[in-house]
Formats: sequence, structure tokens, C-alpha cells
Amino acid sequence: MRNSRRGSVDPFIVMDVMEAARQAEAAGRHVIHMEVGQPSTPAPAAARDALSRAMQNDSLGYTVALGLPELRKRIASLYGDWYNVDLDPARVVVTPGSSGGFVLAFTALFDAGDRIALGAPGYPSYRQILKAQDLVPVEVQTSAKNRLQLVPQDLEGIDYQGIMVASPANPSGTMLGKDELTALIGTAAEKGATFMSDEIYHGIEYDKKAVTALEISDDVCVINSFSKYFSMTGWRLGWLVLPEPQVRQVERLAQNMFICAPHAAQIAALGALDAGDELQANMEVYRTNRQLMLDGLPAAGFDRIAPPDGAFYVYADISHITDDSRAFARAILDEAGVAVTPGLDFDQQRGAGTLRFSYARATADITEGLERLRKFMVAHGHVHA
Amino acid sequence: MRNSRRGSVDPFIVMDVMEAARQAEAAGRHVIHMEVGQPSTPAPAAARDALSRAMQNDSLGYTVALGLPELRKRIASLYGDWYNVDLDPARVVVTPGSSGGFVLAFTALFDAGDRIALGAPGYPSYRQILKAQDLVPVEVQTSAKNRLQLVPQDLEGIDYQGIMVASPANPSGTMLGKDELTALIGTAAEKGATFMSDEIYHGIEYDKKAVTALEISDDVCVINSFSKYFSMTGWRLGWLVLPEPQVRQVERLAQNMFICAPHAAQIAALGALDAGDELQANMEVYRTNRQLMLDGLPAAGFDRIAPPDGAFYVYADISHITDDSRAFARAILDEAGVAVTPGLDFDQQRGAGTLRFSYARATADITEGLERLRKFMVAHGHVHA
Repeated sequence: MRNSRRGSVDPFIVMDVMEAARQAEAAGRHVIHMEVGQPSTPAPAAARDALSRAMQNDSLGYTVALGLPELRKRIASLYGDWYNVDLDPARVVVTPGSSGGFVLAFTALFDAGDRIALGAPGYPSYRQILKAQDLVPVEVQTSAKNRLQLVPQDLEGIDYQGIMVASPANPSGTMLGKDELTALIGTAAEKGATFMSDEIYHGIEYDKKAVTALEISDDVCVINSFSKYFSMTGWRLGWLVLPEPQVRQVERLAQNMFICAPHAAQIAALGALDAGDELQANMEVYRTNRQLMLDGLPAAGFDRIAPPDGAFYVYADISHITDDSRAFARAILDEAGVAVTPGLDFDQQRGAGTLRFSYARATADITEGLERLRKFMVAHGHVHA
Repeated sequence: MRNSRRGSVDPFIVMDVMEAARQAEAAGRHVIHMEVGQPSTPAPAAARDALSRAMQNDSLGYTVALGLPELRKRIASLYGDWYNVDLDPARVVVTPGSSGGFVLAFTALFDAGDRIALGAPGYPSYRQILKAQDLVPVEVQTSAKNRLQLVPQDLEGIDYQGIMVASPANPSGTMLGKDELTALIGTAAEKGATFMSDEIYHGIEYDKKAVTALEISDDVCVINSFSKYFSMTGWRLGWLVLPEPQVRQVERLAQNMFICAPHAAQIAALGALDAGDELQANMEVYRTNRQLMLDGLPAAGFDRIAPPDGAFYVYADISHITDDSRAFARAILDEAGVAVTPGLDFDQQRGAGTLRFSYARATADITEGLERLRKFMVAHGHVHA
């Protein structure tokens, strides 16, 4: 049996870190996990209660491919509550995670050879899924002065049929304001390119509300998820918002490629949408952790950072310290017992000089992790004691 | 925004039947559902109990991409219990439904333009997923004398890089015996083609145990699912068994395209694997229903059928009665209140002369449905009262 060429995607560098951390823990060491991109909190109690009830009364067979009508309606109403956008539930497609949303959207919207512009640094799976579908990821280097977000000037002279942006972004946590997003949507429209907006970190934002692309245009594809703000990573549930003429094509593809998103997760999500208090309590933890990071990372010598507008990551430029972030991350794990992510997954060009720190975990872990990082950096002479 | 060409897959004809049935029910009519391809039973109690416990103690975040190690081990041991095959758990990949398994396998094993031979009639999503991935489904007409399964002679003179078989098959319920499967695997090997075996109806079999392709060769890709025998359709959980050299490629793709299969479903599946008594009780219902169908369908004038070896379908040749199975199915729904599936989804060439009857539902429904079908056929002069 042979393997396909298109299926030969890059490995995740972070997997090596996670495996090394697992081995260290198996050997009895204590590790602080600043590499993980998921909340440590479970799905809200209201979500689990909703599923417990449903498991007694419902056989939880297939749902229709687009998702439970009640869930699509509730998701649409979120756009009214969060952004004052009036959204037709018929444009909402419930997907098996945002991952399933990417697979569906790329298949529905692009043909083999189409080129999709992505800002680097960015979420590595964009380019891997694109490659696996015979699409061409066009990585465009963003600038620190634009807080690592694409701007129209970055795209000049580049050929592309689609653009993907993320706000808040992974790994930087920076957001696109309404003006910036409007400019990018306008650039895509002039080019006749399809505009996609990854909004999976919406809800996890600090000083101001994130802007959805739907505030600006209906001719966009929005990808979102219950994984982050709603704390339901392992449940694999997300959604797309599409222009009306795309829904039928996506529905047919979803019927064949997925049949439906997990029914149990759809029931749980209906509960999670009612769990505002619990979710806000999670947010208070992220807010506390973020401030600890913004104080503690510079104190530990990681001072080339931009305060994140959202999500739960800080992306640090360490190019003045090392040109091998992978080895540096390994040393931090081995010597300090803190797992962090080298930037190479996010930015193939500049990631050898960057690290991503996650603060999604418990506050006590963040405090301890920052102290360990400081001691490591003192020991190596990168910062004064 | 434009739609892709490859994403423009065929609609399911059965969806029209289901929508018409829904409208009839909304208008107050009683409908017997012989169109559905899923058990009416919920996940086994042991599955639901396992999840209820886990929801109290575990945050149910992402699992590793290949699935919970304990689940992979239990699935591997199933091959010992069911077939006396010693399977390394490292070759088992837990997937988001068999649908996710098809998407993963096709991406990992084939490049754009590769041709995959499929027997017709067959599961329609094979060809739609292949098309959506720029692969070429090569539908090969099977013969009634081979009980609608492919034989090597059918493939002579045809170019292909892969073969997909299903045993027990949908829509026919027929199985490939060990000799037949050995011959097909040999034909694929001679051709240098990848052999894929859809075994999602294994466990639902009547007179003899289904044969897994793994009894014959390790150089095959097996697709299976918790949906049918384990009665967990809406949970979206399946698995692949792959040769060892394919696992790493599939793992990387899974990390990017799905992250993991639903954690809750993986926990539930561990419970379902311990639910032998409840699953055997479900099997007794299918067995009773099958015998009712084998007696009742001929009595209702549907006498061109082959007894199904497995699954929960009977596929009937009605080409002597009509050349428009779609209109015929609609008349049965409108006049008799029984929803059945026209064969067009399964066989684009001959499906206008076939119907699929499902007996997955409660026995009382089967009895009532058969009586309604008999009256309809009497009223239309296709059978004597």
C-alpha cells in the first residue's frame, strides 16, 4: 500500500514537546503545561446536565446534516447578543469542530490548485489541511508593527483565490479592529477572492469585544467553535456561517463527508449556551492569568511581547536570545520543568526565534510556571536575578 | 463567493423521501419508516453509564489523535474475539465515524486523479466523498448471480488504483465469503491497487460470521464503526485498521483535519464494548424482523429479493413493475404511509428499477409496514389479494 503525496503533511513540532513532557512526568518529574491550547475546565455543568437528561429520553441518532434546528437558531441569536448582527439561522451550519468546518469550507469553496493567503505566524493546520486537499497555502509574513495581523499592503502582488484571517489570532492573541477587517474584506472583494474569518477565540477577549466579519459583510465565511469560550474542546463541535448560496453545497457535502456533527455534543452545546455565569468565571481566570503573564514574562526576560487582545496565548520574540527555539524549548522543559511551544509550527520562516506561552490553565500553575521561567533565564544569564 | 466544482456532489434522493415523510407526519399522517439506515435503539446503557461517570470526573478535553489507547486496545482485541485475528493496537485509528475514516483514508492513500473501483449498487457517499477529493469513482456493475458483490471478472480491463468493497453490503445485505474476498484481495495485489474493506455492518449477521479482510491480508485498509452493531450512530465514532507504514501519515492528517474523535463518544464506546447482552437483544429484534421481511415482502409482491446475510436491509428488484422507483416510492408513501428508499442513490444505472427496505426499526412497525405494502400492491394489481 502506498501513501499519497498530498497526505504527507508536516509533523507538529509541539508534539515532540508534549511527548517529552509526558516522558518527564512518567519519570516522576512535575511539569507546568504552558504548551497546551485548551482550557483545563470541563464543559459547563449546564452542558453536562443537558446531555445527562437527553441520554435518558432520546436515542441520540443522526441529526440532520446542518445540525439541530434549535441549536442553529441559538447560534444565530448569539450574533444578535454579541454583535447586534441579525443573522438568519439558515446560514448557520453546525460542524464536527472548527476542524470539520475548515475541511467542509475548503472543499465547498475551492478547487484543486486554488491559492489561499494566510498570515504567518498562524494556526498550522490551515496549511496542512489545504495541502491535503490539493490547495496551495500562500504564507504571507506579517509585521510586528501590525501586531502580526495581515494588512492589505502585505497582499500586494500576490495571486490568491481566498484569504483566511484569525482574530483573536493563534499564536499572538492579537485582534483585527473593525477598520482593519473592513480593509481586508475590501481587498478580497476587489480581487474576487473568498474571505474566511476564523473566530474560534471570540468570547475570550479582554479590553474590547472582538469584531465578527459578519458586521462588515454577508459575503464571508465565518468559522467558529464551542471549544474555547464554551470550554468544549473534546466534544468536537463548531459552526460555519455562510452566504445563503453556499449553504446547499455545504449541506450536500456534510451529508456525505460527516453525516452530522456529534449529537451528544449538540445537546451539550445547547446547555453551554445557557451557562453564562460559569463561562464568565472561566474568563476571570484567564484575565488574572493574562495579567500575571504580562508582568511575569518581562520579569523573566521575555520582554518582546505584545499584550494579547484575546485568546490565552502570549507570543514572544526570542530571536535576540536564540535562533533555535526548538532546542531552547527543550532546555526549558528539561531544566525548568515548563512545557512551552517553539514558534516553528506557526511560522516556518521566523518561528526559530519565537515561543508561544499558553495561560489556559489554573492560576497557581501560571504563577509557578513564571517563577520557574525566571529562574531558568537567570541561570542562563538572560536576565539579572 | 463561488462554489467549487468538486464540491458540487449529487443530492441524496432519499432526502426527498424523508422530507415528504416529515411533511406527511406534520400533516397528521402516520408513517412507517422503512427508509432509515439506523437502529432505533440508543447507545447501550453501559455506554451511557460510562459517559455519565466520566462527565463527573474528567474534563473530556482533546484525546490524542489516534484515539484513547485503552479504546484502541479494546478494538484490537475484538479482532481476536470475533475472527481469531491477532491485531496490534498500534494499527487501529479511532475516527469521527466511518465517514471520518473514509475522508482520512482517501486523503492518506490517494492523490488527485486516482481511480477507485466501487461495486454498484453501493453506499452513495463513497462516490461523493471521492469526487469531493478530486478522486475518480469507477462504478462497476455487479451481477445478481454474484449477489450484487464484485468479483475479479467484473474488474477486467478496468484501470484503477484502489478498490472498495463492503460486506455485509448496503443496500443488499449480502456478504463476501472468505474465498470471494481472497480472490478480490489477490486481484488488487496483482494490480498494485490499494484494497479497502468497509466492514461497518459486522456484528449484524444472521447465518454465518462476516469475514474481515484482515483474516486474509495485513496489506488492506479496513473501515468500521460503532454506529450499527453498537447502536451509536449519532455519536460519530468509527475506526480504521491500517498497515503499520500508513499509520504515521494518517496520524498527522488526523491531527490537522480532526484533532481527535469525540472524547465523549470514545468513553461511551468503551462501555458499549462491554454491553454484549443488550447488543444481542438488539440482534434478536433484527433477526425477527428479517424473517418477517423474507416472508412478508414476497407476499406483498416484492419477490425478487436475495436473503440478506447481514445488515438490516432488503434490496428488491422491481424493474418488472416500474422503471421509475422514485415515483413508485412516492406513491407508496402517499397511499400506504410507508417510507422506502428508491434505488437511485445506490445504483445510478439500475436503481430506477429497485427499492431498499430497512428493517432496523421495532418489530411492530415491520409487521404494520408489510401489511400496508401488501394492501398497496393489491390495490395496484401487482399481487392478488
